[in-house]
Amino acid sequence: MNLIAELTELLGPTHVLTGADCAAYTKDWTGKYTSDPVAVARPANTAEVSETLKLAARHGVDVVPVSGRTGLVGGAMTRGGLMISVERLNKIRELRPETRIAIVEAGVILDRLHSAAEAEGLYFPLWFGARGSAMIGGVLSTNAGGSNVLRYGSTRALCLGLEVVLADGRVLNLMSELHKDNSGYDLRNLFIGAEGTLGIVTAAVMKLVPQPRAYATATLAAKSLPDALVLLNRLQEATGGAVEAFEYMPASYMNGLAAARPDIRQPFTPPYPVTILVELGATAPRDATPSDTGEIPVTLLLQEVLAEMMEEGMVLDAEIAQTEAQRKAMWERRELAAEVMFAPKFVIGTDIALPLEQVETFLTRMAARLPLLDADAQDMCVAHLGDGNLHYSVYASGDDPVLHDQMVEAVEDEVAALRGSFSAEHGVGLSKRPSMARRKDPVALDVMRSIKAALDPDNRMNPGKVIPDRA
Amino acid sequence: MNLIAELTELLGPTHVLTGADCAAYTKDWTGKYTSDPVAVARPANTAEVSETLKLAARHGVDVVPVSGRTGLVGGAMTRGGLMISVERLNKIRELRPETRIAIVEAGVILDRLHSAAEAEGLYFPLWFGARGSAMIGGVLSTNAGGSNVLRYGSTRALCLGLEVVLADGRVLNLMSELHKDNSGYDLRNLFIGAEGTLGIVTAAVMKLVPQPRAYATATLAAKSLPDALVLLNRLQEATGGAVEAFEYMPASYMNGLAAARPDIRQPFTPPYPVTILVELGATAPRDATPSDTGEIPVTLLLQEVLAEMMEEGMVLDAEIAQTEAQRKAMWERRELAAEVMFAPKFVIGTDIALPLEQVETFLTRMAARLPLLDADAQDMCVAHLGDGNLHYSVYASGDDPVLHDQMVEAVEDEVAALRGSFSAEHGVGLSKRPSMARRKDPVALDVMRSIKAALDPDNRMNPGKVIPDRA
Repeated sequence: MNLIAELTELLGPTHVLTGADCAAYTKDWTGKYTSDPVAVARPANTAEVSETLKLAARHGVDVVPVSGRTGLVGGAMTRGGLMISVERLNKIRELRPETRIAIVEAGVILDRLHSAAEAEGLYFPLWFGARGSAMIGGVLSTNAGGSNVLRYGSTRALCLGLEVVLADGRVLNLMSELHKDNSGYDLRNLFIGAEGTLGIVTAAVMKLVPQPRAYATATLAAKSLPDALVLLNRLQEATGGAVEAFEYMPASYMNGLAAARPDIRQPFTPPYPVTILVELGATAPRDATPSDTGEIPVTLLLQEVLAEMMEEGMVLDAEIAQTEAQRKAMWERRELAAEVMFAPKFVIGTDIALPLEQVETFLTRMAARLPLLDADAQDMCVAHLGDGNLHYSVYASGDDPVLHDQMVEAVEDEVAALRGSFSAEHGVGLSKRPSMARRKDPVALDVMRSIKAALDPDNRMNPGKVIPDRA
Repeated sequence: MNLIAELTELLGPTHVLTGADCAAYTKDWTGKYTSDPVAVARPANTAEVSETLKLAARHGVDVVPVSGRTGLVGGAMTRGGLMISVERLNKIRELRPETRIAIVEAGVILDRLHSAAEAEGLYFPLWFGARGSAMIGGVLSTNAGGSNVLRYGSTRALCLGLEVVLADGRVLNLMSELHKDNSGYDLRNLFIGAEGTLGIVTAAVMKLVPQPRAYATATLAAKSLPDALVLLNRLQEATGGAVEAFEYMPASYMNGLAAARPDIRQPFTPPYPVTILVELGATAPRDATPSDTGEIPVTLLLQEVLAEMMEEGMVLDAEIAQTEAQRKAMWERRELAAEVMFAPKFVIGTDIALPLEQVETFLTRMAARLPLLDADAQDMCVAHLGDGNLHYSVYASGDDPVLHDQMVEAVEDEVAALRGSFSAEHGVGLSKRPSMARRKDPVALDVMRSIKAALDPDNRMNPGKVIPDRA
């Protein structure tokens, strides 16, 4: 029997898609990468994922896992491979408020986990624009970040246990719920962020945290980026580390937002050079309980620090959200980033990390360097400033791939000179393999190749992603 | 030339020890494991470690890294291998207060890093009894825990970057200082906790945290273990997670302490069944600034919660430290654990992790099960209760190895039934290899063997540790 017939026998005809039925799976959010799969298989559970992988192994077919398809790096694309969608592995197996864990399957949409945690007075702190579509499998496979990493860490910091199906169909059970568990090599963190090149994540034990009892959220204009960092440090110090988000939107971004979405109210017109969205979360009751006059301590604290810095000239203007609707409006400006940044043609997007104090130097150097490559190029960025993570984009004047690559190299040069990384939170996929080849320690690349060959000797698990070919 | 001659040429005669000169390196703290090395090499820097490993590879000699020799699991023992001591790699290469990182070499003693951080108003939060001898290399290689894991995490959570020398002498440079860096597989976490079986850690970038401005420390008697957990939850809630340590010392431990160290004052005579050492750390100024009447908020908060629970009958008695000397005395009782627990003959020590709410069930079940194996056996434990990490020991009536192994298996049975782990924070080494063989997911063991074979094809890096032989 051929692969398709065997798959159909295993999963049923409605869960093996071919030809035009695959259409929805062949494009991702960016529209930049397209696939040409032999079929899309939709197993219902871990056992079916295992059997599907055994079939693929027997037929020598490549395998690419897909979940929410919100990735930006082409990580789930294939030419002729079998796509395994985890969308039907969509159970929250357990949610235990008393131990603050959720056991979830790979196809659970991020926002469903948010709602389930909230119903128990808890919070799952991974938070980014695509949360209404992104699934836990993809979140884990890319070690996704987002806006709350500053306080709670990336995906890795929020995962206690993992279930993975290997290339040959064996199920690797690492479903620990413990906060301390030193029993051999750290396989969990190896599979997290491996983008499906070592196995397919089917389930995980995720940590939940107490839902903050109150938020204090503000949009403000800082005089400069260094002044914004002074604000961040003062708020961290005053609250003992309760800053949940510290997002940077330069004038180029606010103007881009105004152009793409004129319906969105601008906080400051014209925009100041440095707009910051800051949010504090009150976890302890004393920080969230309104005083006799109705003031919430965490909001008062934010007001005080902002007033002090306005007096000193480091903050130029500020709005503090007075209602949940105002808070949501502030976040919407930031979360339209993907829409805003990918609106123009000829976009070269990057996802870089820098030491916090080097962000300004990087932007200054790029502003000087860019015109030398393309006189009409424009740049724009939006940043998780608290993590030093910039989504820095260049809009080129045309689609010359050689020029685009020169621009990416220019970004990489400056990032490397400032001890940063060319890849922060979106993953490597297809798009950053050239950067991996150019910038990653060659010994590290060799070690990765050895591990890949050891766990996937036939190179069938999401081949051609993450690790560049040997030069 | 033979290996010793070549090593001597490389490192100089004073740094290649053989015969009786190796004596200090052939025993560890427990005295239970002994070594018989061909030599002890003491390279001065990463380049010399690399050259030493190349020599060992050429001669086909096994290699075992050693640092502070405070391990409890026989992880640094060898028969006929070359010991590589990292003691001369003892530089704090950089300590940058503004970015809160320290770049340290593997031979830096933990307490030296504590002092260096403290001099800058910062804190390195890995804290355990052996901190005056343990070195960063061993701390990283075992993913060490300790008393502050509850608030700050284990070693893995505190390491941003790593430098490792591989079996063939190549240097793997993963020295990132970034909080977000997704550039390929997570090799850093793979080498942390690998106990030298994949390579030798030579340096690392470690995170520092703000030094708490004040501590509130108490020794108290809880009515029961569940009551102690109520206290932990109330304190975490009231402070927004500022509990730095929550240590459990049952009556058996307090009696053991009284016997081993009659010079140490006992807090309650006779001891209550459940003695707890708790410490809160005030990070924000408002929690640490004395009021007009001199009270420190974090101490007041501890007093309030303790008073409330005494009223409710859940706390029976309590002492709050009024001076730093009193605080130190409270910690001394807990930190004498290694001395207390290894004082009797025929000790079977364990290092287990349990879901917090299962600790009492575990102890009850063992109390019933132990006499069936050995009528005269006694048990004792001391625990990082906030992490569910128990150091549970059994004192057998004799040294019958079969009986000892039955006791370890009995502990493993109950731990597995309660979804715990047989290994929490001390590492696997030699002592927990049988447990790995019996209890670890067989697919996980196979994946570990594949990775080991890929990175150390000749099985010369600390062979015979961590991963059990194939059955």
